[in-house]
This record gives sequence, structure tokens and C-alpha cells, in this order.
Amino acid sequence: MAKVSAQPPKGTRDYLPVAVRQRQYAISIIRQVYESHGFEPLETPAMERLDALAGKYGEEGDQLMFKVLLRGQPLVQGIEQAAALLQQPGAVIETRSGKVAPGAPALLADLGLRYDLTVPLARAYAANQAALPPVFKRYQIQPVWRADTPGKGRYREFCQCDLDVVGSTSMLVEAEVAGAAVECLSRLGFQEFNLRTNHRGLLRALVEKAGLGPHQEVDAITAIDKLDKVGAEGVERELAERGVGEEARKALLGLVAGGVAGGAPGDGAGGAAGGVGSGVTLERVAEFLRGHAAGEKAVAELRQFIELAGDTAAGSRVRFDVSLARGLGYYTGTIFELVSPRFAGSIGGGGRYDGLIGLFLGREVPACGFALGFERLLLLMEEGGLYPPNLGALQLVLGSTSDSDGGALLRASRELRAAGISVSMSPRAEKPGKLRKAAEDRGAPFAAWLEAGQFQLWQRDGDSTERGLDAAGLVKLVTERTR
Amino acid sequence: MAKVSAQPPKGTRDYLPVAVRQRQYAISIIRQVYESHGFEPLETPAMERLDALAGKYGEEGDQLMFKVLLRGQPLVQGIEQAAALLQQPGAVIETRSGKVAPGAPALLADLGLRYDLTVPLARAYAANQAALPPVFKRYQIQPVWRADTPGKGRYREFCQCDLDVVGSTSMLVEAEVAGAAVECLSRLGFQEFNLRTNHRGLLRALVEKAGLGPHQEVDAITAIDKLDKVGAEGVERELAERGVGEEARKALLGLVAGGVAGGAPGDGAGGAAGGVGSGVTLERVAEFLRGHAAGEKAVAELRQFIELAGDTAAGSRVRFDVSLARGLGYYTGTIFELVSPRFAGSIGGGGRYDGLIGLFLGREVPACGFALGFERLLLLMEEGGLYPPNLGALQLVLGSTSDSDGGALLRASRELRAAGISVSMSPRAEKPGKLRKAAEDRGAPFAAWLEAGQFQLWQRDGDSTERGLDAAGLVKLVTERTR
Repeated sequence: MAKVSAQPPKGTRDYLPVAVRQRQYAISIIRQVYESHGFEPLETPAMERLDALAGKYGEEGDQLMFKVLLRGQPLVQGIEQAAALLQQPGAVIETRSGKVAPGAPALLADLGLRYDLTVPLARAYAANQAALPPVFKRYQIQPVWRADTPGKGRYREFCQCDLDVVGSTSMLVEAEVAGAAVECLSRLGFQEFNLRTNHRGLLRALVEKAGLGPHQEVDAITAIDKLDKVGAEGVERELAERGVGEEARKALLGLVAGGVAGGAPGDGAGGAAGGVGSGVTLERVAEFLRGHAAGEKAVAELRQFIELAGDTAAGSRVRFDVSLARGLGYYTGTIFELVSPRFAGSIGGGGRYDGLIGLFLGREVPACGFALGFERLLLLMEEGGLYPPNLGALQLVLGSTSDSDGGALLRASRELRAAGISVSMSPRAEKPGKLRKAAEDRGAPFAAWLEAGQFQLWQRDGDSTERGLDAAGLVKLVTERTR
Repeated sequence: MAKVSAQPPKGTRDYLPVAVRQRQYAISIIRQVYESHGFEPLETPAMERLDALAGKYGEEGDQLMFKVLLRGQPLVQGIEQAAALLQQPGAVIETRSGKVAPGAPALLADLGLRYDLTVPLARAYAANQAALPPVFKRYQIQPVWRADTPGKGRYREFCQCDLDVVGSTSMLVEAEVAGAAVECLSRLGFQEFNLRTNHRGLLRALVEKAGLGPHQEVDAITAIDKLDKVGAEGVERELAERGVGEEARKALLGLVAGGVAGGAPGDGAGGAAGGVGSGVTLERVAEFLRGHAAGEKAVAELRQFIELAGDTAAGSRVRFDVSLARGLGYYTGTIFELVSPRFAGSIGGGGRYDGLIGLFLGREVPACGFALGFERLLLLMEEGGLYPPNLGALQLVLGSTSDSDGGALLRASRELRAAGISVSMSPRAEKPGKLRKAAEDRGAPFAAWLEAGQFQLWQRDGDSTERGLDAAGLVKLVTERTR
């Protein structure tokens, strides 16, 4: 037999039993929290049409997306073969997907693997609108695929856990989504974490009020987004490189980085040590934006969010952070993200995005959502020892010292299961020591074996063995001891 | 905004909340049964390297497999462009995956989507052997993808639910696997179904004993496999077309199709009405095979399987069927499949396959497994009304007749959830009738709303409304009524 490499593809993983159970445990908690908030599950196909995905994730997304080869395309495309065909005047290349005239470009792929859960939500919402309620509260827990460079906590196949509310402009929705996200982390055992919040409208108003032109808005927000990575000086440098004048830079940075408005960056007032945004209160920003209509509206919305979130599990954890920008993405209003002092970067983030969901419908549909960074969450749970021990449900390893007791073993294991005891039966004769070891390896509290026509029951706790049991006696004893 | 089609790719589906819950319900039962038998969960990546998948599924598999375009390949490959490059002497085409000299074939894809769960098991078993027990009992419930022509119950993305035991030659394994498979169907509410069984060694011996040459073995088994579709005459015709002589045809068909050995097909003794194999007893086959060593061994194994299966949930449902062949595939010993009078074709099948798992290790590893046809199972459950009603867990729809009660609603819904009540909050002011309707639509037994500072609680059962409640009173009343 020829040997083939057994490694999974780069950046992907096999999940062995313990890992599957840990993932299932975290997913079950998240699902319970989402369901308890009245969110409903949605699942979409792993593949989407490329025309539905195209242009939704920027240039990087188009590059990192896994694309699926058109069915019928030969795996290896000989350039020589293509060239030879080109020599024949009037030749037509037949493929399964139709005829291609030489000279015409051949489409290689028409499907792509799911890149996130938000564009599929938008597509599925449009396709199934008639069957969905006017306000659709959905959650979705499925893998997505990105051909990124793998690293710690970064994989090419990873799970996302999204919840979104589609069809409502009410700020109650933001508060409920933030509360559910915080409750997930609390229920999973996290203690030290906060919910940073800001508003995209507030950022846009800040940029405008600081004197930057509309064409500089995106650049400025991109620069601000890096504040906690590069510090105020770094942001200042980036703004300068992008052509933002000194006065505008100072006005903006003074506000965003916590220094006195107009104060020189690098003088200690605007540096990263100055507080990475958190030193600037919403009151101060509100004062700066007084008289700017859109800015005042954004401040009022953010105040409403903070007040309403106070009535949810997010309450005491909400922190205004003027430097939070959440990338560029599709956000239009309130934005927030979960941060922990144990982890650089966010554990999840979300906000309001009123432009995306309607793309497939040709009209604007309001939406607000949150995505947990599931793989990071699992890493932090591992590091923090937050998984309950013995997630495997196995209770008893059953075997025999002889190979001739098959029927008796099958009957006993069936009776044990009928009494609610999970049983793993050893298919070959084993010494009792091996069976006890197997029970320990599986985290099972019991091992039992048939020896000379009678069962013996070993209990890990106390390392005690009962002898001389028949099948009914075995079932009775295990049932009593597991109650 | 430009409108883009919202349909999912051909042969794939969006699962709306009711469908997700039905799928999750069936999966949770199957998982419980597998876990109670001591099987452990494994999950593998959606993509596998093409060199690991190649040649494992026959020519059809290679065609139906979804292949993933090599990263860095342009989506549209211009043949003109390729030809132009060829004109330049000594030119080298740069791609992300390396340099390609003109004239060399360009590899378009290096990964494929998971086509089943058995080859990934073999690969993952080889990759992780050191971390796995000597006898590895695993189950795996994940989607697979095949570019098949979609039809009723046949999709391009569908779920498989496999359980396999790797590393044991004991017949106890076959019995346990068959018992677990039958228990899944019973626990899901199926009543009328049976487990057909046969043995690949018995089939091979039959073919040989009937006088066919070794080169006709595969053809003959392929023909027999179609007996319940085309009847004895059809099989006879196919055998003749494949060059099997009349005497051998008669000997084989007489045995397999239930007629007297040597009787002419089409005379009523060998026709499909004659019993589709089930009319032939194992005793009769054993008699025919007497003196054929491999045949006698297969008969003894099958008898042992039927006896041991009698001690499992499969017990009374096991039916010997000499015409069962389970395609060609990789089976080497006992084979079995679940059949229902309500469904043409099987609901699942499996057996022993000792050649496949070791492919990645370069040595033989014994294995026995079973795969439930999950999508067919769901179709039959739908038709048979086997889903419990109200699989959605929602208990209460909460709202307000005014838009100004946001904080009070959030606080009340938080208190309800703390008491274990799942709540969906309406984010906008609604009339009580709308909230009652929403509760009905979601299958929730309660609706509650805030009106003039007080809560009212409506219970669907009895259509009664309690008025004048504060939040604590609301929580108390709902808790009492859901106990």
C-alpha cells in the first residue's frame, strides 16, 4: 500500500474527542444564552455563489477567499494544450459547463467558501423574507474559511458565533445584543473583561469638526483605529503622511488620544500611556461636538445605548472609548467590542450596520449584530482553566477476561444503557488492570468485567472492587452509586 | 444599490429556524445514542488535500468532488494571455504557488471538499495515532459535499452521521455498531424497519462456486446488487451481457434470487416477486457452499453476527438477505443496511472494511462502521410526523405598548431569564394583539406587555390575561405556570 501524508491541510485542524467536547461545551452555553434572548438559529451552505460574495470583503477578502473550481474543469490545465487549440482557426473548446471559443477567457470558479456569516445572512434574509418575521433575531454558529497566514489562534477554518437583529432601528436592539454577548462570556466563566463602545457617526463628526475634508475621513478613522497599537505619535505620523494638516491633526489627536485639544502629541498628554482613548470622557467629546448636528445626534444615541445597556448584563462593563473604530467595515452607528486584559485584540465585536443586509433586496434594511471570536475565546478558556473537568459523558468501561462472553457483555451493556449509564465495551478479552486503566483514560468513574461467569465492579473513587455480581446486580449497584 | 440574486448555490439549502431545530433534535438523539455506547466525537476539516482524496471514491467520486482553486490563481484564466506568454522565449509565469515555465501544466486545485467521513477518519487516525486508544470508537456528524444532480432527498451539501470502530477484528464490534444504528432509529420514533445483512466473503464464494471466474466477480456482485431494482430477469440479462455463461448464471441466480438452483429465470421462481433474496435462507446458502473453505468461514462469521446482534437493540430486526451487496466500495466482511417499507433504498448502511483505514499508515487496520443517511432520515421523520411539536425553546414574547419603556423591558427580560424563562423582546411598541400573535408564531405559551406602567401576562392555553403585575409579580407568575 502506498503511503500518503496524513496531515490535514495547512491552517486546518483535526479535532480529537477532548477538543470536540470542549468546542461543543462552549457552543452549547453560547446557544443557550442566545436562545434565552429569543434569538433563532439559521444555517446557510458552506459554499456561496461568487457573485454574491464578490466585493463584500474588500480586496483582501477577494484574495483570501477559497474559491471552488468549476465542475468539469480539468484539474491540470496544460498551457501547451490551450496554445495548441488557439492555433486551430475557428476551434471551439468543449467543457462541461459549455463551449469556450479560443481567445475567450475561461471562468475557473463560480463558488466560494463562506467567508463570514453576515453576507450569508443578508443573502438568506432576502431569499426567505416571506417566511421570516418583520424583526428577525437570528444566531448562527458555523465555520468560515479564509486563506490567511496561520498563526496562534488564527486558522484557515474557524468557527464564528454571530447574533444579529434584522429589521429594527430601535436602540433596544443594540442593548440586547451587547447584553447577550456579555452574558456569554460570564456564563463561560470569564471575569475580567469590558465592553468598549463608540459610535461611527461620532467619529465622522469628530473628523469633520477637527477640520479634515470628507475625502480624509476614511484615512483618519483608519489611523485612529491603530491608536492602541502605535500610540498617539504613530497616529500623528500616519495622519501627516496621509496629508492631514498640522492644525487638524492636533485638534483630532487632542480629542482622541486624551491630550488637551490642540496640545502637541508626544508631550505626554497624547501618548499611548495617556490612556488609549479611555481617558477622554463622552462629556468632553460632546462639548467638542456642540453645534454639529450629526455629532450631537451620535452622542445622544451613544448615551442612550450606554443607559439601556446598563439594564442588561453588559451594565457595569460598558466603557466609552473614542479611539474604537472597529476597522472600516460596514458599521453605521453604535459599535462595541469585548476586550480582556489577558488578550491583545478583541474577543468579539459588533454594532449597527444599516447598509449591508439590504444589498440583495435593493433597499436599506436596518441591522445590528455581534460576532464572538470563537477560536480566541477557546484559547482564553484553555489558558484560564475554564473548561469543566471530564466533559466526556462516559460512565463505565465494560469488558471480560475471556473472549467467549460476547453475548453476556452485549446484554449487560444494553441493560446498563437502559438504566441511563453510558458504557464503552471492550471488544477483546482484557485483564482487569487494562480495563481500569481504560476507565481512567476516558474519565469514567467505573470499570466492570466478567470473570468466570460473574461481574466485578471497580469504582475509581476509593479504588474499591465489588465481586460476585450478576448483570442485574451490576446495573443496580452502578445506578445506586451514580445517583 | 445593485440587486444580486439571493438564491443559495444549486443543490444547497438555507436552513430556517424550524429546520435547524429539527436537524439539531435528530442530531442530539443520534449523539446521545452514540455516546451511550462509548463512542467519542471526532471532527475533521471541510477541506482535504486532493492527494489524500484522490482515487478513494472511484472515477465518479473524482468527478463529483468539489475542488478548491489554488490560492493566487486568477479567477478568469485568459487562454489568450497564456498563449501570449508562450510566445515569449524563456518566459516564466509567476504565480503565488511558485514559478511555472510555459509549457508546463498549471495545477489549478490542490484541495477538495470532504466527500465522506471515512477517508477523513483514515487520514486523521494515521495523523493522530499516538493520541488515540488502540481500539478507537469514534462518531462524526458533519456535512459532506458532492456535485451530484440534485433530487428529492439528494443534495450537494448534506450531513453524514458515522460511527466506526477502528483497531478490532472482533465480531462484537459489528454487533455493537448494528445495535447502536438500530437504537438511533427506534429513539427517533421509527417503528417499521429492518436490518438486512450479508457478508462480502459469502458473496465472493457464491460467485466462485457458481462457476464464474475471478475476473467476473466484481461484475457479478454489481449485477446482484441491482436485484431489488431490476428483478431476477434484469440481473440475468446483465450477467449475460457481461459474458457470464448460462450455467453459471442459472446456478448463481437460483441461489440469489430464491428460485431452485438451476431453474430458469423468469419462470416465477427467480423473479422479483419471488422474494428479493429474503426467500433464501442462510441454511440453504450454507448447504450450497459446503466444502468451500472461504465460503464456510463467511457463513460462520455471519451466523456469529446474527447471534450476537440478537443481544443488542438490532435483535429482532436482523434479516439475512443474500442479494445485499452494498455497492462495491471497500467492504471486506459482514455488511448490513437499514431498510424501511416506507422508503425505497436504505436509510443507512455499513459493515466491516479492513483495507481502507490503513491506507495512510501503509499497513492493514481492521475497522467496522455504519453511516446513517441523515437527509433521508429527516425526510422520513417529516413524512411520519416524528418531530416533537414546538422544538423552539421560546417561552415568552415581551413588549410594550409604548416606545419609552426600554429600560423596564430590558430589566424584566433579564429577571425572567434569570428565572430560567427564555424571552424574546419586541424592540418597538406593539399592540397586545400583535404580541400575542408573535407568541403564537414562535410557539411560545406566554406573551407579556407593559401598559401604563404595569405588566399584563397572556397565556395561550386558555387565552387568559392577568393584569396589574409589577416585574417581580410577572416573573413569579410565569415561573409558577411553567413549573
